[in-house]
Amino acid sequence: MSEIQALERLLHHDIPLTGDMGLRVRAWDNHCLRLHVPLAPNVNHKNTMFGGSLYCAAVLAGWGWLHLRLGEAGLSGGHIVIQQGQIDYPLPVAGDALAVCENIDEALWQRFLKTYRRHGRARLQLQTQVLDGERCAVTFSGQYVVVAHTPPAPA
Amino acid sequence: MSEIQALERLLHHDIPLTGDMGLRVRAWDNHCLRLHVPLAPNVNHKNTMFGGSLYCAAVLAGWGWLHLRLGEAGLSGGHIVIQQGQIDYPLPVAGDALAVCENIDEALWQRFLKTYRRHGRARLQLQTQVLDGERCAVTFSGQYVVVAHTPPAPA
Repeated sequence: MSEIQALERLLHHDIPLTGDMGLRVRAWDNHCLRLHVPLAPNVNHKNTMFGGSLYCAAVLAGWGWLHLRLGEAGLSGGHIVIQQGQIDYPLPVAGDALAVCENIDEALWQRFLKTYRRHGRARLQLQTQVLDGERCAVTFSGQYVVVAHTPPAPA
Repeated sequence: MSEIQALERLLHHDIPLTGDMGLRVRAWDNHCLRLHVPLAPNVNHKNTMFGGSLYCAAVLAGWGWLHLRLGEAGLSGGHIVIQQGQIDYPLPVAGDALAVCENIDEALWQRFLKTYRRHGRARLQLQTQVLDGERCAVTFSGQYVVVAHTPPAPA
């Protein structure tokens, strides 16, 4: 099973609302994650996408990105939790949406990993976008915290 | 049909995801709106409520509040849209959730109505909370804009 399929299965299993939303994992290339969300199950009173669904797509793009990067680093198994989110909706989304979390600065990522390995807990701010076609319709910034299941062994 | 039933029917009809979430309109008393969201369809990988569902509940409490207040003022029919949202999750929600939008300062509301009547468009910042039992687990602040379907007649 590919990383894409595994992530999609995990999301649908662990967060059943993602199944109701019809959310699909579209691509994971060069540390850029893309999630596809169809309009129909997420429509609102204006026949555009419900702002709550857009938030879900945006927050999950960051969640999935962090999940995949931690897996690559051999650090699967921690809990990833959202602590704060800020969302802006400059444009409505009139069709299917693509939520994108791009790669971050490598030095920032290495600092995060160092903190997590040392303390079993670390925070990371991630920016994601939701695209309607090629237009950026939504920008999101979220503060995620990852907590190891078991405390790290004493150094 | 009561205001509560009418709002619940409207939400389920216009935003079908609210039906998948099992969202119910619980109370509308003294200009305080309460929405109930059950844990089961909104659960996450930690058996607490998915942060995206909590956002949906919080943003809809403000949306519903504004819809009901506009109706009382004889101003039904405009589009209410969310432009920005800021959410904080100080505590996880381990059971069913209650999203609450309290009444706002009357002078602020009157200023909003005056702007809307004059220009057919107005913005309002609303604060909502999500309670887990009696504990405040989530705070949300959203900027809503209401746009009249047709421009107002010249004064």
